[in-house]
Amino acid sequence: MSEHWLQIPEWSWNHPEENQPTYVHQWVQQLKKLKTAPEMILYGAPISRSSISVSGASLYPSEFRRAWKGFATYNLDENVDLVQFKVADAGDVAMHTTDILLSHQRIQETTAYLAKHYPKTITCMIGGDHSTTACAVRGIKEAYLNETIGILQLDTHLDVRDPKELGPANGTPIRQLIDGKIVEGQHVINIGLHGYFNARPLIDYANEHNIGMVTLKQARKEGLINTIKGALEKLSAKVDRIYVTVDMDVLDISVAPGVPASTPGGMTSIELFDSLLEIGKHPAVRHVDFVCLDPSKDSAVAETVKTGVYAWLQFVTGCISQTK
Amino acid sequence: MSEHWLQIPEWSWNHPEENQPTYVHQWVQQLKKLKTAPEMILYGAPISRSSISVSGASLYPSEFRRAWKGFATYNLDENVDLVQFKVADAGDVAMHTTDILLSHQRIQETTAYLAKHYPKTITCMIGGDHSTTACAVRGIKEAYLNETIGILQLDTHLDVRDPKELGPANGTPIRQLIDGKIVEGQHVINIGLHGYFNARPLIDYANEHNIGMVTLKQARKEGLINTIKGALEKLSAKVDRIYVTVDMDVLDISVAPGVPASTPGGMTSIELFDSLLEIGKHPAVRHVDFVCLDPSKDSAVAETVKTGVYAWLQFVTGCISQTK
Amino acid sequence: MSEHWLQIPEWSWNHPEENQPTYVHQWVQQLKKLKTAPEMILYGAPISRSSISVSGASLYPSEFRRAWKGFATYNLDENVDLVQFKVADAGDVAMHTTDILLSHQRIQETTAYLAKHYPKTITCMIGGDHSTTACAVRGIKEAYLNETIGILQLDTHLDVRDPKELGPANGTPIRQLIDGKIVEGQHVINIGLHGYFNARPLIDYANEHNIGMVTLKQARKEGLINTIKGALEKLSAKVDRIYVTVDMDVLDISVAPGVPASTPGGMTSIELFDSLLEIGKHPAVRHVDFVCLDPSKDSAVAETVKTGVYAWLQFVTGCISQTK
Amino acid sequence: MSEHWLQIPEWSWNHPEENQPTYVHQWVQQLKKLKTAPEMILYGAPISRSSISVSGASLYPSEFRRAWKGFATYNLDENVDLVQFKVADAGDVAMHTTDILLSHQRIQETTAYLAKHYPKTITCMIGGDHSTTACAVRGIKEAYLNETIGILQLDTHLDVRDPKELGPANGTPIRQLIDGKIVEGQHVINIGLHGYFNARPLIDYANEHNIGMVTLKQARKEGLINTIKGALEKLSAKVDRIYVTVDMDVLDISVAPGVPASTPGGMTSIELFDSLLEIGKHPAVRHVDFVCLDPSKDSAVAETVKTGVYAWLQFVTGCISQTK
Amino acid sequence: MSEHWLQIPEWSWNHPEENQPTYVHQWVQQLKKLKTAPEMILYGAPISRSSISVSGASLYPSEFRRAWKGFATYNLDENVDLVQFKVADAGDVAMHTTDILLSHQRIQETTAYLAKHYPKTITCMIGGDHSTTACAVRGIKEAYLNETIGILQLDTHLDVRDPKELGPANGTPIRQLIDGKIVEGQHVINIGLHGYFNARPLIDYANEHNIGMVTLKQARKEGLINTIKGALEKLSAKVDRIYVTVDMDVLDISVAPGVPASTPGGMTSIELFDSLLEIGKHPAVRHVDFVCLDPSKDSAVAETVKTGVYAWLQFVTGCISQTK
Amino acid sequence: MSEHWLQIPEWSWNHPEENQPTYVHQWVQQLKKLKTAPEMILYGAPISRSSISVSGASLYPSEFRRAWKGFATYNLDENVDLVQFKVADAGDVAMHTTDILLSHQRIQETTAYLAKHYPKTITCMIGGDHSTTACAVRGIKEAYLNETIGILQLDTHLDVRDPKELGPANGTPIRQLIDGKIVEGQHVINIGLHGYFNARPLIDYANEHNIGMVTLKQARKEGLINTIKGALEKLSAKVDRIYVTVDMDVLDISVAPGVPASTPGGMTSIELFDSLLEIGKHPAVRHVDFVCLDPSKDSAVAETVKTGVYAWLQFVTGCISQTK
Repeated sequence: MSEHWLQIPEWSWNHPEENQPTYVHQWVQQLKKLKTAPEMILYGAPISRSSISVSGASLYPSEFRRAWKGFATYNLDENVDLVQFKVADAGDVAMHTTDILLSHQRIQETTAYLAKHYPKTITCMIGGDHSTTACAVRGIKEAYLNETIGILQLDTHLDVRDPKELGPANGTPIRQLIDGKIVEGQHVINIGLHGYFNARPLIDYANEHNIGMVTLKQARKEGLINTIKGALEKLSAKVDRIYVTVDMDVLDISVAPGVPASTPGGMTSIELFDSLLEIGKHPAVRHVDFVCLDPSKDSAVAETVKTGVYAWLQFVTGCISQTK
Repeated sequence: MSEHWLQIPEWSWNHPEENQPTYVHQWVQQLKKLKTAPEMILYGAPISRSSISVSGASLYPSEFRRAWKGFATYNLDENVDLVQFKVADAGDVAMHTTDILLSHQRIQETTAYLAKHYPKTITCMIGGDHSTTACAVRGIKEAYLNETIGILQLDTHLDVRDPKELGPANGTPIRQLIDGKIVEGQHVINIGLHGYFNARPLIDYANEHNIGMVTLKQARKEGLINTIKGALEKLSAKVDRIYVTVDMDVLDISVAPGVPASTPGGMTSIELFDSLLEIGKHPAVRHVDFVCLDPSKDSAVAETVKTGVYAWLQFVTGCISQTK
Repeated sequence: MSEHWLQIPEWSWNHPEENQPTYVHQWVQQLKKLKTAPEMILYGAPISRSSISVSGASLYPSEFRRAWKGFATYNLDENVDLVQFKVADAGDVAMHTTDILLSHQRIQETTAYLAKHYPKTITCMIGGDHSTTACAVRGIKEAYLNETIGILQLDTHLDVRDPKELGPANGTPIRQLIDGKIVEGQHVINIGLHGYFNARPLIDYANEHNIGMVTLKQARKEGLINTIKGALEKLSAKVDRIYVTVDMDVLDISVAPGVPASTPGGMTSIELFDSLLEIGKHPAVRHVDFVCLDPSKDSAVAETVKTGVYAWLQFVTGCISQTK
Repeated sequence: MSEHWLQIPEWSWNHPEENQPTYVHQWVQQLKKLKTAPEMILYGAPISRSSISVSGASLYPSEFRRAWKGFATYNLDENVDLVQFKVADAGDVAMHTTDILLSHQRIQETTAYLAKHYPKTITCMIGGDHSTTACAVRGIKEAYLNETIGILQLDTHLDVRDPKELGPANGTPIRQLIDGKIVEGQHVINIGLHGYFNARPLIDYANEHNIGMVTLKQARKEGLINTIKGALEKLSAKVDRIYVTVDMDVLDISVAPGVPASTPGGMTSIELFDSLLEIGKHPAVRHVDFVCLDPSKDSAVAETVKTGVYAWLQFVTGCISQTK
Repeated sequence: MSEHWLQIPEWSWNHPEENQPTYVHQWVQQLKKLKTAPEMILYGAPISRSSISVSGASLYPSEFRRAWKGFATYNLDENVDLVQFKVADAGDVAMHTTDILLSHQRIQETTAYLAKHYPKTITCMIGGDHSTTACAVRGIKEAYLNETIGILQLDTHLDVRDPKELGPANGTPIRQLIDGKIVEGQHVINIGLHGYFNARPLIDYANEHNIGMVTLKQARKEGLINTIKGALEKLSAKVDRIYVTVDMDVLDISVAPGVPASTPGGMTSIELFDSLLEIGKHPAVRHVDFVCLDPSKDSAVAETVKTGVYAWLQFVTGCISQTK
Repeated sequence: MSEHWLQIPEWSWNHPEENQPTYVHQWVQQLKKLKTAPEMILYGAPISRSSISVSGASLYPSEFRRAWKGFATYNLDENVDLVQFKVADAGDVAMHTTDILLSHQRIQETTAYLAKHYPKTITCMIGGDHSTTACAVRGIKEAYLNETIGILQLDTHLDVRDPKELGPANGTPIRQLIDGKIVEGQHVINIGLHGYFNARPLIDYANEHNIGMVTLKQARKEGLINTIKGALEKLSAKVDRIYVTVDMDVLDISVAPGVPASTPGGMTSIELFDSLLEIGKHPAVRHVDFVCLDPSKDSAVAETVKTGVYAWLQFVTGCISQTK
């Protein structure tokens, strides 16, 4: 029973009895205590020992929840109060100290459990490194065997390195899913690629499998939001549900000190925020994850973690207009 | 006699005898030594123990003056040499070690003194935290009892938290002034609001008191400079003088490590510089302050302090065309 | 024999035997081992004790080469594989520990040697501080006595301080070249100037010598790429070869922590990347340098060094279309 | 009713149901939930806006409690398991945002409350800056009006600056108590003084009031532990109860990055640990505080906060042998 | 064939042709190139994904070798030139990206290979986290099945957490070896224990298995060197060979910022240096490792890595007198 | 006239009119304003471009003077008020931007000037890097041609690298003086040597020239203070005056983050303080310098700079008992 693996973080619910929440930690509720399905479930997948280079992304779920206390529930730009939308925190998937495969299996099982038991609920996984995406998508496939899953990926990298060589490391999730017949290459679109960060063999693999590649430069030329919309339309015409994976290294290195794999030439935070607002609006988008943010590398004012919370809230704001 | 409280910072005038100043510290003169009124007076209000969270903004006036040695007086973008414009430094208001109310009183008295004795001079206060703005505006009111004061606020936050609960803390200045009948809510316009950083009750207060709220998103859509111009026109049609308060947390967190309250999604430094150039040009603008910059949190190369000096020089450049 | 001064950095060629290079360190070859002239030669000029303020820019050549291991040879934005273009690393010019003039002489001799022996090859010098530019241009003049050299400078500063006062320091290279009759002032165009970072006497010197000054604000108004193109056309109509010098302090301080002289209001990294792509395309551009980046001041994730490598690769990408 | 001011920190009791605690956070209990008086009560006084220079010592109580999760209850050096000793956490005294006098009053009232209601219990206050010590001692005096209080102070400074000049700032507590007739100068002994950190007038004051001053150099010559023992004997012969105040700036600057007022030439952490073990053993010691540690200045591995927890546990270990 | 896993680090031999080495990198030779067995073999075990908390100890072997360039071969304190002692670097054991068990197996096989093929050579493993010690000792047991192995452990922790719960994590090596019947508890002596960093159940385990526990306090009382000597005598009377494992967290947190698990109250660097000099002298000591140093957490001047190199050289100095 | 080169630092005399100085900056006077010779003259030699590796030691004189504001004039350990001893600040020797030889010449001339004009005054030079010592000693020789000069050096390094190879770099001063016949090798004693930081050829040079080498280990065995006393006796028996040079890299790396060349195994700050107290007491000691401290590398709380000021004050305290 995969629910078993969910651990409740000790500090996330300060004032569960609060009648009129005005801050995020007062608004997000504990899944266990809810009697009806929420509109969104959040869960953490705190693993990063599967990362190719040293990473503390396993620390992100708890820092994410700690940082959200600094955010009000009111979105001033859109004049929307998020409290109308029910979000529940399921806690973190319990990771084994050294058994990576077992930890990955638990993420898959937990995601499958949540997807099955809350079919109308949007799931949001907070990683952990990018290896967790392969687990989560497999879990969703397990829950919806007859459905076709598409992936919208915001990422500087293709993440199609060979798991036969590296094992289920954070450079491999998309290839795991394609080689494993969980997702077809033609149902994957990556927006945010740029520069010199994908070796030729990886591009060859992507081309062979018809992965959609949109460079940031192209996207900016056509308008990033138009590009996002176009990608969602293209995917939703072909698949039953869209999984969105946000590798935080899509951000420019100057705004993301807490993502060691981020590079110059990446997205601005405003571009990411606008993208996620748009993504949240699309009804085919049922799952999202945010991965590869290492809080131990972040700046003293936790700039990247705050950007991560903000990005997620933009997605939530988008979802609200989706549900309307 | 409030002039009493002005302390002369030891290091600000290196070369008072210099004939042709080329750097800022050679150009700014000591108020005490001037025989005629300057066109602008600068003074520091080094207090931050009134800040809700720990802040070293009290250190800003001296770091501001230290950093200005790195700036030439020649503005290459506008082909303007600032030396034509007389700026005097009045020093810092002497703060009491622990008596916040007394310190605030001294800021008010000093501002009133300067406003009365130099009626044609633009005043520029370097904070300190945002609590100082309430003191300064009260001081100006004291000097110009029959005039109506408008406020143009560049800020991520409304700063209308309740002084009855917090005392005269840095989250409360606008509310202090409105509740205290010094300024009307309809004479306050805040540009720079964005995201999730104002709890609903504060927005309700702002709406009840007709505070003008312009989000950064709206401003960018309409053009930030057009928005600034429009706000100044709107205010100047209704008030006698405009007080401009620049909470440095209006800047995006990626360009303002030295402003712990800054957030993702804020202004770029170029946007702030362009805004202040425009603001300086408007004849109704008679007072400005720059607050909430904590140099002890700044990056190793003093990025935020340098941005603060630059912003102020843009305002000065604007004033020069105002005086022409 | 100036070739004598070139020292081979120990670590730059990991896999010289590699057949299909996919990363930069596998692609760049050792000059000594080549039998035919490459299309570009790279060499380091690791000196910064000639810098006015304390600088560790002497450490840049080795950090540059270490960082390029993180870059693939495939440029996704332009769909170009750099491996088609032969780049050789000549190593670093050997610097004397304390004799600055001797070190400068060696840079000049080495540049002259490379320019003479590889007449069809583009040279790329990695500084060191900006004093190295004067040495390199003198070396090129030595190799091409009958040719007129133009300079395209991307810089926040004019670098025309007086060598009679400072010696051959990093604030003086352009003036060294003009006063030394190596380059005419009218054949120098500086793009990237902004703000308050050039004292009036320097601007006067520039005007007297007809140095082309384009502020970043102007350039952005007309389109930065158009401005770059226009400058290159203007120069190439008058000179035989163009030397491009990139003072990394042209970058905004928020994206260049590793350039202590960088300022607010500078170029974004995207602007620099686009500029260098365009510059590389122009056939009159035969020489480039990148100077004043101090890796010892860089952020923990080596943000500025990575930006430096990226900028250089953009120039290479431009060169490839030039050679087509 | 001063109990009113105690706020329960949300995260301090992870496993209240745990039967056999092995870590500190499992062992320390919540005062509210206890039916009988514990042997020690811990409470926080999170104020530092009363500090002369900028301080984040207000953040210490929560960081102290967070850090104790890294400590086991077993003291290997003394072969003592702390779980035999009942320690309760009363939470933090609620501070007003800007009213320093009111906040100080609440610390005094809370301390008086605890001292009265738990007469057999040792109290341990976690500051906060050193101004809190004056409040706490006044509170104890309020509870035990007929008793004479002695102070053993471990401090680099005398802290006898004039409250008439500074208000109740962190440089004044000992003088507040002496001038306020709460404690006699001859009942104060300061161990840890050294170097050049007390201006002559302060030494004159100390001499006039017969404050015991033992420099670290003297103490080391006689043996620090012997000196501590001697001081406790001397005090206990004259007073009814001893209050121990540990200004963490007594530590050498090389082991206390998180205490900005620490200096070269101070105590090693081993010396502090040995001292507190000895101090805890003395039956006249009924109250202790630890002040002036600013976690926001601490090293990345929280070296100073960990040293603070360790020091407190040494005191607890000492108390256990006291109770035996 | 476990030799297969050894990768040669590219940068360790700068001047292999050097006749008279004066720096460490000139003296240490490449194992592959030697024709006769050296007196010491060094090899890296760069794994830390087996660490309980996030660790970059996998980066230590390469930083260790980079830092040794700053050390001369001449030991001034002992007037010994190390060049008389032949040390060879075998390179690093090749780690799998995600398969921890496979990586551990390779460390074991490589160690067994080296122990078998170089029976008279002292082996020195540079970790990696403490999980590598279990692998190395098993490898040695594999090579010397009939010999009894003793362990001298310098460590703040017992490292006897349960591998059944955590897998082969860095908290478990000693227990792996005892439960696995590779080493007897009575043949393990740990010197350096102190404070509150071992939970009671771990101490119970140690007592049940007769692990020798000597606290730093006891050792200092008896003299640390005497204690070390005594422990070596005691062990060598009972075992055939002694394996020394140095967990760098035995160092005090103030001298070891690069060891996140280090604590206040630990060894000084001088104490560690003296200990290793003594340890190296004992003829029964045939193997040593240095583990758990994470260079990514080290100070800007690489204080901890330098301390690590120094400590190793002290051991080498000791070995020289052993071989005499 | 070498007095010409002395520049007055702007900020060092805050309150020249102060009657009863209690802080260092109130006590030290400006040399120019004195009518009679002081007992000690302080001057800065702000050069570090002569350093082998990148150094910001040129920034030390100004940071030294800034930091002394945090020190009272009363030495509590010795019960001595420094104000009885007249110390004057002569300012900094004006350095040329790029001409190292010229800068060195100015240091020599200035030192000669001060030594000649103030024959009874102790001189104290604040470096700069260690190359300045050679200049200063030559200056003193120039002033006292017939006197024999001895050097007591506290240093981790011998600093006898070959100036023929490196020029007058910071690794060469002692050899410059010996090869230049200014000082005899037998009149140099270095205390503080340890570990692996002097290559064999340097030790050979030292032995050939009979430089006295006392390792820290030896000194500690015999008592550091005894060793210092012995060295001073030995020297004073043979020379007319003793020059003391304190390379701050003699300190252990854990207490001297601001001295990049410091190493593990060095002096504690207490040892340095005690040494300087003793040194100051000896009547033959007429000159001292403190070199190689780079404030730009120091910790956030300026630990090393504070240690530098403290060390100097200990020397002053010693001098006071010398003059008694």
